Amino acid sequence: MRACVIHGGSDLRVEELRERPPRAGEIAVAVGLGGICGSDLHYWRHGRVGDFVVVEPMVLGHEVVGTVDALGPGTTGPEAGTPVTVHPATTCGRCPSCRAGRRNLCADVRYLGSAARIPHVQGGFCERLVVPADQVVPLPEGLAPRRAVLAEPLAVAVHALRRAGEVFGRRVLITGSGPIGCLTAAAARAAGAAEVVVTDLLAAPLEVARAVGATRTVLVSDAPAVTDADVVIEASGSPAAVAGALHAVRRGGTVVLVGLPPAGDVPFPGTVAVTREIDVRGTFRFDTEFTTALDLLARGLPVDAVVTHTLPLDRAAEGFALAADRNVASKVLLDLTV
Amino acid sequence: MRACVIHGGSDLRVEELRERPPRAGEIAVAVGLGGICGSDLHYWRHGRVGDFVVVEPMVLGHEVVGTVDALGPGTTGPEAGTPVTVHPATTCGRCPSCRAGRRNLCADVRYLGSAARIPHVQGGFCERLVVPADQVVPLPEGLAPRRAVLAEPLAVAVHALRRAGEVFGRRVLITGSGPIGCLTAAAARAAGAAEVVVTDLLAAPLEVARAVGATRTVLVSDAPAVTDADVVIEASGSPAAVAGALHAVRRGGTVVLVGLPPAGDVPFPGTVAVTREIDVRGTFRFDTEFTTALDLLARGLPVDAVVTHTLPLDRAAEGFALAADRNVASKVLLDLTV
Amino acid sequence: MRACVIHGGSDLRVEELRERPPRAGEIAVAVGLGGICGSDLHYWRHGRVGDFVVVEPMVLGHEVVGTVDALGPGTTGPEAGTPVTVHPATTCGRCPSCRAGRRNLCADVRYLGSAARIPHVQGGFCERLVVPADQVVPLPEGLAPRRAVLAEPLAVAVHALRRAGEVFGRRVLITGSGPIGCLTAAAARAAGAAEVVVTDLLAAPLEVARAVGATRTVLVSDAPAVTDADVVIEASGSPAAVAGALHAVRRGGTVVLVGLPPAGDVPFPGTVAVTREIDVRGTFRFDTEFTTALDLLARGLPVDAVVTHTLPLDRAAEGFALAADRNVASKVLLDLTV
Amino acid sequence: MRACVIHGGSDLRVEELRERPPRAGEIAVAVGLGGICGSDLHYWRHGRVGDFVVVEPMVLGHEVVGTVDALGPGTTGPEAGTPVTVHPATTCGRCPSCRAGRRNLCADVRYLGSAARIPHVQGGFCERLVVPADQVVPLPEGLAPRRAVLAEPLAVAVHALRRAGEVFGRRVLITGSGPIGCLTAAAARAAGAAEVVVTDLLAAPLEVARAVGATRTVLVSDAPAVTDADVVIEASGSPAAVAGALHAVRRGGTVVLVGLPPAGDVPFPGTVAVTREIDVRGTFRFDTEFTTALDLLARGLPVDAVVTHTLPLDRAAEGFALAADRNVASKVLLDLTV
Repeated sequence: MRACVIHGGSDLRVEELRERPPRAGEIAVAVGLGGICGSDLHYWRHGRVGDFVVVEPMVLGHEVVGTVDALGPGTTGPEAGTPVTVHPATTCGRCPSCRAGRRNLCADVRYLGSAARIPHVQGGFCERLVVPADQVVPLPEGLAPRRAVLAEPLAVAVHALRRAGEVFGRRVLITGSGPIGCLTAAAARAAGAAEVVVTDLLAAPLEVARAVGATRTVLVSDAPAVTDADVVIEASGSPAAVAGALHAVRRGGTVVLVGLPPAGDVPFPGTVAVTREIDVRGTFRFDTEFTTALDLLARGLPVDAVVTHTLPLDRAAEGFALAADRNVASKVLLDLTV
Repeated sequence: MRACVIHGGSDLRVEELRERPPRAGEIAVAVGLGGICGSDLHYWRHGRVGDFVVVEPMVLGHEVVGTVDALGPGTTGPEAGTPVTVHPATTCGRCPSCRAGRRNLCADVRYLGSAARIPHVQGGFCERLVVPADQVVPLPEGLAPRRAVLAEPLAVAVHALRRAGEVFGRRVLITGSGPIGCLTAAAARAAGAAEVVVTDLLAAPLEVARAVGATRTVLVSDAPAVTDADVVIEASGSPAAVAGALHAVRRGGTVVLVGLPPAGDVPFPGTVAVTREIDVRGTFRFDTEFTTALDLLARGLPVDAVVTHTLPLDRAAEGFALAADRNVASKVLLDLTV
Repeated sequence: MRACVIHGGSDLRVEELRERPPRAGEIAVAVGLGGICGSDLHYWRHGRVGDFVVVEPMVLGHEVVGTVDALGPGTTGPEAGTPVTVHPATTCGRCPSCRAGRRNLCADVRYLGSAARIPHVQGGFCERLVVPADQVVPLPEGLAPRRAVLAEPLAVAVHALRRAGEVFGRRVLITGSGPIGCLTAAAARAAGAAEVVVTDLLAAPLEVARAVGATRTVLVSDAPAVTDADVVIEASGSPAAVAGALHAVRRGGTVVLVGLPPAGDVPFPGTVAVTREIDVRGTFRFDTEFTTALDLLARGLPVDAVVTHTLPLDRAAEGFALAADRNVASKVLLDLTV
Repeated sequence: MRACVIHGGSDLRVEELRERPPRAGEIAVAVGLGGICGSDLHYWRHGRVGDFVVVEPMVLGHEVVGTVDALGPGTTGPEAGTPVTVHPATTCGRCPSCRAGRRNLCADVRYLGSAARIPHVQGGFCERLVVPADQVVPLPEGLAPRRAVLAEPLAVAVHALRRAGEVFGRRVLITGSGPIGCLTAAAARAAGAAEVVVTDLLAAPLEVARAVGATRTVLVSDAPAVTDADVVIEASGSPAAVAGALHAVRRGGTVVLVGLPPAGDVPFPGTVAVTREIDVRGTFRFDTEFTTALDLLARGLPVDAVVTHTLPLDRAAEGFALAADRNVASKVLLDLTV
């Protein structure tokens, strides 16, 4: 089968891999579409994401939809042909994080297309993905694959919102208008935020934000043009963004950090955090929010504008380059069927 | 009457001020003891605390005990001679923070000995302090003034603990062994923390920490020697402390910032905050925790070791210098009666 | 001026009262519309609501809109002619509930048209209502009085939802389809609930629930036909409703009680509460949610169907009788201008 | 081996059972002491606990300590001879409760000595208990078995306290002075409660409450003599207790129900719950609090007075009768070694 494999920084190849049949407890999925995520771009550009370094060839991708191809012997699951998506994580269930109901922080997680473990966990940009049966989730009735493929990044957004606490009736500022920022904006509207302001340094991504329901968008240069937000969700990961978020939130407000800042330290206005008694909360991936995301998509959350391009697998490199150009693209999909 | 007045950076004077009788709704307190706080030291050294600049002579001090001297006409309150302490804040009761039950964040607060407003709110290092009757709190039966004078900084510590969430049965790390760090350690023990580790760059303050109940103390050079704390309470305000706290807390743990960092930005390991999903919470002053603090003191919280020196008012400058020397002193009191 | 005055059980009169000019700090409002609430009906039928007994003539009503008629001397507020509504409560600001940010529980509240205090606080079903200036709230631009008059009961609903915790993406069951149940349904949808099921013993009120956005309605006989809700909001106040709510919620779920049960005790399945570890939360009135409610109405929350009848003041008795007939009416308004 | 087996209501037998060797993943524990719990008494008296009916012979007991006897083939765990206790629950790890971090609500739990499943899960009142290795917990250094055997009921108490929210500095009322009430009192003191008042209908159990640290005890007839508690923890399970707890708590306070009320409905003052906006929270068993409990015991929590009697296994029936006589006994232990 063909797969999109990273061999190191800037070394992305579409190549032929051997298929293997699903074992007991596994399911093989014929992959239809895969979304390129920011972390995929990191692997492509730098051969690493933070401390996770690519040390062996790894299939990228953890946002995928498709249909069930085959079930392992004695395995229960949706029958062959069923449209499905794949929850990217299997957690240990025993570490303190898992016991506390925070599986997204599992110290021993297996996450699709991640170099955190050695051997790496192979990802989903391949024609036939074999995963534990528990990770395979049937699509809700009537949900188009092209929308369902957004379940993973939307789950990140929903989890970020849960970390923010209640947004119903509140003023929410989202800094950064990439796919995660825009999906968070759409989810915040669905959760009843009174205002959802989205900012970015570029004009093009803000058009997507408007299309998915932002009540206002602001083109910023350096400092955020907004103050006194109840909740700020930082989704850009830019070095100056944490400080900007703290300056933009009201006394006693909440800043959620979902964008991954550069490695090392970024500037932090500590006196603001202390004297205004601000809550700053990191947020990382998701757990059961995957189901919530699918449900939101099935009920019509208006996020189609986030997907700007779809390319066949053989043009994966072009797709990655597109996804990296924020003036042109937001979410770029790979079509694994052609 | 005599008072300890700041006129600008390094310009601290003990001078004679005119007394005024309490008006309706006010009470005059004959001040007995006053504790020198870190913010008093800031005014003394720099003529400012953050954005609050001394632009007119201001009596310092917001940690005071004494006895009721006189009540304003028609005013209800404890009778003359009653031992009392003074809650340092009067809040507006109407701003969003007040309505939300977070009076410590009141945008229009009047706080004893603070240059945040112009004219400044005069403080308590004076022989006779006139304040709104609501701020005057009788000492619990049997509580010695020398202990009661710690109610204000202990209230800061109790509020910091409330911001930390539950510490019962948890491992708590406190970075910084000054008066706030030590009082927080004592309070954390009273709240049932399983372990209370206190760190400092100096050995002398750690002796105080041990005396007030720290289960372990660690002399650190740069990096904290502790990892995987459930809760870290940063009480040093040193520039590297925020980053140190994030590295010392477990996945999904909580960092509370009570020490005031230097103005501007300090380093912040954003990737740690995001990927470990850490909560970082500023904490500022207190509200009803003043009563809790008095109650803890009355029930015997072992914090006497925090007070290392008591000097007469006339030697105030010496007292400030002592308080600034962490190798020698922890909390320094002024005796206003001699 | 004319007013709708309760003199005791079943003794409701429209009579002529003397007007008085607003004093300093007060505003006189020319009342336009007033909504009849369940507690108004209680006063009318029984001359009491729980422990609050009518012992002197009292103008009823606490859901009113109108325009500013006059400001007291030296009083700041919206100018004469401004369309306004009236927050029904003034709180003491000093009791433990107020300090904790729970003003709706103020032990010394003054609430429009309530017999909780003696002398009673006169209500708003009168042509000219004089209230403290702080209680007068200008209508958001473009909000019709006919919708704005729902701000008070909608604020009750919004507060009930806040007490429920997060409903975004959750399954919410609302038992009771009266005005509060229906407004809660509309608010729950606005807050992103995945499902909002409303039940009632009667068919007519369920039509209103559907019109305001319930995703499903269920005509029930005795037992609720729903199980495994994440959140149940009991809005009927019927004697069997608390037990029904506990049987309908999932393990670890939340039951919010907003309907006022009959005085005395109602049945409670304690073993269910314990072994399924259920949270049962009373909810009472509101505070700042009044503003949120106005904002929701201004942004188009689809609640118009809740208002089924509007009658002139002189036909108040008929209006009360209508409001008590759940087969015919939901919210009944009095028009104070004709 | 000998075991204490329930065959039905009032039919408790000490009889000889066949031992079986531990399988892979299991550990055999030589049981030393076992504590008789209220649910054991229910099985003994009624042949059932709520809906769980004894339909086949079942070894009772879920509070046990002992030493490791043998490990199953290839099994990792503490070596033979290690003093251990046994966490009574194995959870599924996959149901919504488990995923949410609330394993104590697992729909598919296996709990020692419980008739909830068929076949029943055999309990720990036997000379040699074989359990999954994960359930075996080494005793902290220096913790005597006689104290360690209280870890299970103390974990129930700690979990009840966590459900109560913060008790540090608060006034806590505990209704019911049986083993759970007394252990909750001790834990509440350790968690920094300012006052811990314990009530009971009998004088004898209140002596235990005083011995473990209650700040006050009250002999009650019907109504609780206490009002305005911040937190009430109902630990008696008596039919009138839920209503009593609601009358005893302050506005906006919290009632935790840990005592199991009689099956069916108990009286509930719904108007109090609503108008005082009270939180009523069921609490059931525990999860990770087992470790916290062991740690508290190792650090010297003063709970020895809770154990009033220890009898050899052969006198189990006498032990059960004793445990049921609240005028004489609190916690009764069985000694499985003699």
